[in-house]
Amino acid sequence: MPLIVQKYGGTSVGNPERITNVAKRLLETQRAGNSVIAVVSAMSGVTDALIKLAREVSSKPTEREMDVLLSTGEQTAMALTAMAIQSMGGKAVSLTGAQAGIVTNGVHTKAKISNVTPDQIKKHLGEGAIVIVAGFQGETSEGDITTLGRGGSDLTAIALASAVDADACQIFTDVDGVYTCDPRVVPTARKIDTISYDEMLEMASSGSKVMQSRSVEFAKKFGVTFEVRSSFNNNPGTIVKEESAGMEQVAVRGVSVERNQAKVTVAQVPDKPGCAARLFTALADAHVMIDVIVQNVSASGTTDISFTMNRDELEKIGDLLDRVAKEIGAGGVSKQDGIAKLSVVGIGMRTHSGVAAKLFEALAKGGINIQMISTSEIKIAVIIEEEKIAEAAKLTHTAFGLDAA
Amino acid sequence: MPLIVQKYGGTSVGNPERITNVAKRLLETQRAGNSVIAVVSAMSGVTDALIKLAREVSSKPTEREMDVLLSTGEQTAMALTAMAIQSMGGKAVSLTGAQAGIVTNGVHTKAKISNVTPDQIKKHLGEGAIVIVAGFQGETSEGDITTLGRGGSDLTAIALASAVDADACQIFTDVDGVYTCDPRVVPTARKIDTISYDEMLEMASSGSKVMQSRSVEFAKKFGVTFEVRSSFNNNPGTIVKEESAGMEQVAVRGVSVERNQAKVTVAQVPDKPGCAARLFTALADAHVMIDVIVQNVSASGTTDISFTMNRDELEKIGDLLDRVAKEIGAGGVSKQDGIAKLSVVGIGMRTHSGVAAKLFEALAKGGINIQMISTSEIKIAVIIEEEKIAEAAKLTHTAFGLDAA
Repeated sequence: MPLIVQKYGGTSVGNPERITNVAKRLLETQRAGNSVIAVVSAMSGVTDALIKLAREVSSKPTEREMDVLLSTGEQTAMALTAMAIQSMGGKAVSLTGAQAGIVTNGVHTKAKISNVTPDQIKKHLGEGAIVIVAGFQGETSEGDITTLGRGGSDLTAIALASAVDADACQIFTDVDGVYTCDPRVVPTARKIDTISYDEMLEMASSGSKVMQSRSVEFAKKFGVTFEVRSSFNNNPGTIVKEESAGMEQVAVRGVSVERNQAKVTVAQVPDKPGCAARLFTALADAHVMIDVIVQNVSASGTTDISFTMNRDELEKIGDLLDRVAKEIGAGGVSKQDGIAKLSVVGIGMRTHSGVAAKLFEALAKGGINIQMISTSEIKIAVIIEEEKIAEAAKLTHTAFGLDAA
Repeated sequence: MPLIVQKYGGTSVGNPERITNVAKRLLETQRAGNSVIAVVSAMSGVTDALIKLAREVSSKPTEREMDVLLSTGEQTAMALTAMAIQSMGGKAVSLTGAQAGIVTNGVHTKAKISNVTPDQIKKHLGEGAIVIVAGFQGETSEGDITTLGRGGSDLTAIALASAVDADACQIFTDVDGVYTCDPRVVPTARKIDTISYDEMLEMASSGSKVMQSRSVEFAKKFGVTFEVRSSFNNNPGTIVKEESAGMEQVAVRGVSVERNQAKVTVAQVPDKPGCAARLFTALADAHVMIDVIVQNVSASGTTDISFTMNRDELEKIGDLLDRVAKEIGAGGVSKQDGIAKLSVVGIGMRTHSGVAAKLFEALAKGGINIQMISTSEIKIAVIIEEEKIAEAAKLTHTAFGLDAA
């Protein structure tokens, strides 16, 4: 009998009515002749309410106790989901992360799964039950409750699918799948039927926040094919899997945009070993998350280093860079916000030449000036004025033949 | 170092401010030179909210899943309590029932504790932490979550006190202790300093609902001395322990009253073996909870059987008794509500003669008619008109010298 893992996020189980809908879908899947494991997140809003409670008793709660507290959210959702299935005449059993055999390391609030021993799951599946597992949580080998951090429920689903060698892993969410571009930006965007792990990762890191990168990386590592689809309809979603020869026929899989970016340039950095290291070590120590880094070719013994980040990160920098610039003998520091990043992603660009040229041409057609360029093996990103990002995305989308027919 | 177990009920941890107060008290207890284990209930209102959620997805949720759901209430409270202690600079660790080693049988929603293996508790105590344990819950030897039913958190505290051989077990509640009578009924009622398990049990079964009987029975079985006291002040409470010679010097420890009673009389029951059994089997099958049963001495081949119950139970009876009465050839059935029960309790009445006489005399003084009498080794209960119960309690309280000086 085929074995299917389905994961439902907080919005999908956001209230009793939606939980009932999830229960219906799980029962339908079972009645179609499958064994079914469901992974559920906490009902939307619950985690925030628990965090608020914690703040009322402690300004800085320990991470161990936050895990104990937050793990109750998924436990509540899993029990209610099992009850809803039972009330429709189905057989269901709920299991906490610990009961489901999800063993993690001891890094509270962002634990890593070290091992899955799905004995209880298999036992209950064998008895014909739909097994509901709490997402986002596990336990250490010493028996402490841990949580997996952001996107943890996706991770639970993929880890379980790997451990039980599932025939399918479906990530139900509030979007229909992965799109060639954000449909709110480019109305002609199409849903992508199949995408490789690497493309999905580049899309995720470029602003298409359907899933956290770590879940995709985990799936890639263990070769778990999964599907991202909507819990509000029955449309097929996007399959994420190992790349195959056929995928390379398309040069660009999608276009992603990220607004609210900021750029910092440190000018006239002495072209000596160690200067860039000093700069970025100082930023890392201040927990500033850097995105694109570009260093111009050195001329006359100095070089300009530019990098981008989320606009929110800019505040953390303060006068840090002015001090570091002085220390390393650089010229000066300039900061700029109101910029955005546009990326084109596709494993096909490895074999298709001229992708960069086509992108630059499309932007030039719209009179859009490129401030920075950064490339990886399967992605080209450009930094442009934020005001122009929608127009840029539409032009690029059309240029690469991604528009819906 | 003395080891103290403290239990805090749902009202005591009812909001973040109260949790902070509980945390303060736990820290003070530790700083006074004790090792401390705290057992906490769910914040008041939380359990009801969870039950409401369950009803929204299922008209009849399974007991296994109810246990999974409800156990999140105590888990939330224990994490918040640990956080509150930590925010005051203390060291604290929270443990679920399962983590604390509370093993139960598999009777969901009213499981019995079969075994306690407090290894985790001892480890954390050894590291100087205050250990917060979720009340009301445990796990089966197969790893399923169970709950202990009403009064379950008291049971957790007493079972832990026994398992770790604690030097003291304090049950914090919203009353100051056990009183000689309900102070709302008899304003001169006094707090009892020391009471035996058996007296506590008789008081509990007669309407003094400070604790569920099963927790007291458990404490008696394992010889755990405990104290019932208030979490809102620092007054000493009532110590509940094995009876000692000194206790017998007082004939009557307390007076308890139970309103809202109803009485049923089945008249002219044939005085043959099996008739009473038929009657009470039928009531048991209908889940009617019976309290006092009185059968008059038989005369002329028939007898009258009367029994009392909570008024709410009366509805369940319907025409059941009319049918049974016909079957066994009894005369007729009469029902009456508007009655109440008054009990005097004390192990001293074993050695003091005249307790019954003194009680009847006190009631006669007030012109109060006794409808039924029932006695046990350490209790005398009378059924009277409900309207007269407050007066009866005051007269009795005074007659036995229980009034505050």
